Amino acid sequence: MSHKSDIEIARDASKRPIQEIGAKLGIDADHLLPYGHDKAKVSQDFINSVQGNTDGKLILVTAINPTPAGEGKTTTTVGLGDGLNRIGKRAAVCIREASLGPCFGMKGGAAGGGYAQVVPMEEMNLHFTGDFHAITSAHNLLSAMIDNHIYWGNELGIDERRIVWRRVMDMNDRALRDVVVGLGGVPNGFSRQTGFDITVASEVMAILCLARDLGDLEKRLGDIIVAYTREREPIYARDIGADGAMTVLLKDAMQPNLVQTLENNPAFVHGGPFANIAHGCNSVIATTTALKLADYVVTEAGFGADLGAEKFMNIKCRKAGLAPDCVVLVATVRAMKMNGGVAKADLGAENVDAVNEGCANLGRHIGNLKQFGVPVVVAINHFVTDTDAEVQAVKDYVATQGSEAILCQHWAKGSEGTEELATRVAEIAESGVSQFAPLYRDDLSLFEKIERIATAIYRADEVLADKKIRDQLRQWEEAGFGHLPVCMAKTQYSFSTDPNLRGAPTGHSVPVREVRLSAGAGFVVVICGEIMTMPGLPRKPAALEIGLNDMGQIEGLF
Amino acid sequence: MSHKSDIEIARDASKRPIQEIGAKLGIDADHLLPYGHDKAKVSQDFINSVQGNTDGKLILVTAINPTPAGEGKTTTTVGLGDGLNRIGKRAAVCIREASLGPCFGMKGGAAGGGYAQVVPMEEMNLHFTGDFHAITSAHNLLSAMIDNHIYWGNELGIDERRIVWRRVMDMNDRALRDVVVGLGGVPNGFSRQTGFDITVASEVMAILCLARDLGDLEKRLGDIIVAYTREREPIYARDIGADGAMTVLLKDAMQPNLVQTLENNPAFVHGGPFANIAHGCNSVIATTTALKLADYVVTEAGFGADLGAEKFMNIKCRKAGLAPDCVVLVATVRAMKMNGGVAKADLGAENVDAVNEGCANLGRHIGNLKQFGVPVVVAINHFVTDTDAEVQAVKDYVATQGSEAILCQHWAKGSEGTEELATRVAEIAESGVSQFAPLYRDDLSLFEKIERIATAIYRADEVLADKKIRDQLRQWEEAGFGHLPVCMAKTQYSFSTDPNLRGAPTGHSVPVREVRLSAGAGFVVVICGEIMTMPGLPRKPAALEIGLNDMGQIEGLF
Repeated sequence: MSHKSDIEIARDASKRPIQEIGAKLGIDADHLLPYGHDKAKVSQDFINSVQGNTDGKLILVTAINPTPAGEGKTTTTVGLGDGLNRIGKRAAVCIREASLGPCFGMKGGAAGGGYAQVVPMEEMNLHFTGDFHAITSAHNLLSAMIDNHIYWGNELGIDERRIVWRRVMDMNDRALRDVVVGLGGVPNGFSRQTGFDITVASEVMAILCLARDLGDLEKRLGDIIVAYTREREPIYARDIGADGAMTVLLKDAMQPNLVQTLENNPAFVHGGPFANIAHGCNSVIATTTALKLADYVVTEAGFGADLGAEKFMNIKCRKAGLAPDCVVLVATVRAMKMNGGVAKADLGAENVDAVNEGCANLGRHIGNLKQFGVPVVVAINHFVTDTDAEVQAVKDYVATQGSEAILCQHWAKGSEGTEELATRVAEIAESGVSQFAPLYRDDLSLFEKIERIATAIYRADEVLADKKIRDQLRQWEEAGFGHLPVCMAKTQYSFSTDPNLRGAPTGHSVPVREVRLSAGAGFVVVICGEIMTMPGLPRKPAALEIGLNDMGQIEGLF
Repeated sequence: MSHKSDIEIARDASKRPIQEIGAKLGIDADHLLPYGHDKAKVSQDFINSVQGNTDGKLILVTAINPTPAGEGKTTTTVGLGDGLNRIGKRAAVCIREASLGPCFGMKGGAAGGGYAQVVPMEEMNLHFTGDFHAITSAHNLLSAMIDNHIYWGNELGIDERRIVWRRVMDMNDRALRDVVVGLGGVPNGFSRQTGFDITVASEVMAILCLARDLGDLEKRLGDIIVAYTREREPIYARDIGADGAMTVLLKDAMQPNLVQTLENNPAFVHGGPFANIAHGCNSVIATTTALKLADYVVTEAGFGADLGAEKFMNIKCRKAGLAPDCVVLVATVRAMKMNGGVAKADLGAENVDAVNEGCANLGRHIGNLKQFGVPVVVAINHFVTDTDAEVQAVKDYVATQGSEAILCQHWAKGSEGTEELATRVAEIAESGVSQFAPLYRDDLSLFEKIERIATAIYRADEVLADKKIRDQLRQWEEAGFGHLPVCMAKTQYSFSTDPNLRGAPTGHSVPVREVRLSAGAGFVVVICGEIMTMPGLPRKPAALEIGLNDMGQIEGLF
């Protein structure tokens, strides 16, 4: 194979008109709303018309805890989708949209890598079909209407100290984290301290990604708690009167985006909530639409399985009535070695002992996933320096865990490299062996839900939370929010809350620093450790290198 | 005729696929980048390929000073475009895009009215093709990079008190007018006072609308002055290293948008700079592209002719090498009556004397426009209550001013109502009688340019400016900006700076309150009176009524 970079491969892609890609899923050109020739939204009318179809099989791709070596979760999602198409199945992939802001800090990212990518790459890293801009507008309209309500007399009695709704921007701008607005005297309103988050951290993003349809979207937007009165009574977005206008702003954004893989197979790329303070999966409407149109839908969840898959199962599947038929757990030999204590610089050398040592992290994820009643296949995402002995060590270890590991070479070979994985995944999915159930019931208390995740998934001994936090949880239960699932925000690098604790730690505690109610999204966010919701730019931001070359191509974005 | 509202007429439109509209101008479907089925961008490649074509004729539509009665400038632009097509000419209209934010304050607006509209109306009032979102992103990336530069050591020596680049949002949000950013200690940077403007007030908007091509766009973005050092040396966007990345963000937005009139004729809708602190016209690239493709291009300028046409001639035409072949000055009988002292409630009753009285405003605009060497036709935009005697009074008056007035009924009848106007405009344009020249030469001093406009257009006796302002202008001349045109920001309701002074006032003074250098856009803004660059929401914002109805249609936006 050639040794081209991801961007070179993406630029050389032989893209087909998006109408041809839609046709593979039975979508007429009339029902595709094109954005250029290689992107389209699937019309709401069409989505309504296929609700009677039988659902396809749902495959979740998740991963071990990420290491700097990389695991290739999206690459494997795309490769598996192409592999299923290769073996004659009608398959689609569903992944998240990228945030624009961070592309100007660190480099932007491909959707996948090597010969397992989704294109068009540049557009997907920039404005794409405008979904995130619509979310920014809807969020900030609500913010403006809150301050406007107070300006004109504050009929609702909002306590200005207790406004919890901030503003958002899709930009890495640390100067906006903590601001005072409303300076300048009477015509500009009442001064107060607030701040901006990055758009992907907006509750509107989480809502768009969990809403079943436009009606559900509007209801959830209305349910957002924006502030409290002096008497601690919640003020909802509905009270402000913003829910209708926000829905109008999000009307087009609710329609899922269709693009294609390098092998011209359909890919839905829609929504992109934070994977810590939100649930980190592509939109429910993209997944449910794909299931109505394809026989196999391959999707992914953010971070490692302890965060991403847990939220996919306990939040997204619970809320949307989804049930995965098979889970693919991605691992790399290099990541096993890093978990086994090898430094990044030394990853090129064979080290079977380190692989064996590092497999503990993989093993725990396998065990965790089985608790949800789903069959697990490990995909070893092959890297050129992996040796046969190292790969065999992973396979042997996985067998001891009652699962199976399959070597995949989609990065170098495209779908040819995932034929074996695709064949096995299809067998498992068709077998009906999956007996999915969420990890906890709705009627546990909020604190018990946290404990359930901490002990069953993180394998911690205990959850630490001070009286203020426990009281807050109880107060929300009394207010009728006790049935909500919890959304854990912790480091993605470890099962514990200490990012340096690799492998499969035990005996640790999970300290809860803060809890937040996302009443519109429908979960309680549990923050364990420092969570940054507005990134900054680095000393040498990528933006300095980004520009158009003489051929009008974008340089420096990747 | 029926008595349907603008939105009802727009919803009933028989739209043709945008590819058919493009074909009328010789644009292949391959060169149209569709956004849904009724909007498209014209590809940069195609634009490059038609540069050898002969230019069509350019018609500017402008108006008397606006009154609450309305004059119908965009309606007439659209009606004239349709009228020219009706009489067998290949014509296109070029108008501005609407800003999203204000639609949630007061009602959003149609592009045109009655049977002279551009569609799709809803999309054009909301996200459209994302141009304004791209401008917001590009503007705010520069803002973030300025604070980031200071955060990491301030190598350029930016004086934090002299940062002149603010942030923007496409939202009416008065709380953001005046803010302090960078609170929260070391990780969030240095605290300083700044603010947000609405996106249409961004210099990036003005630049996008004046740039000839992507290369010119990048150069102008680099030329933006963002701050000064302690020694008062300017710091440019180029010094911050943001120009390349901003160009990448604006790459798609630079391509003009093609939509259609109700009569399925081509309409370019592209760019929308403020008409006070900027030049208030659609993009140069839309106009120049339309001229390469159509035999007649009908475009408009913001506000009345004293502001809009003056800037169209002295800024846009000067910079882009354009020359109008004919100017259409829109007037209504109702507006004449208001200028003649009639209250809005009494406009329904015939009042020929008031019409005669109010014609002074019209007459001065005719005289002003002739100073640019262009032939002027007055279009009387007919309203149902106008009487024959009133219409005749306007015609008679215009004849005394060495021009001609033509009654138009496009609002009620579409192109049938502008046949006479279109025929006459085509005759004049073809006659080659226009001898366009800007009002002042580049080599006048900045203050002389202000005086030239104030005396020749506003008919003021003098310009008042204190020493600080005169010194600032001289300083910019010494720094090499003396050749720039001036961009006047004053009330649109009067020739003077007093909005209540209707008709054709004389003997007034023009006080200059502030001057600003838009070095990227390439003009010096001269502010006479209070100019608001971030609107607020009213007590009962339109957003309260906006929502989707049971059929999924947008209600309350209009």
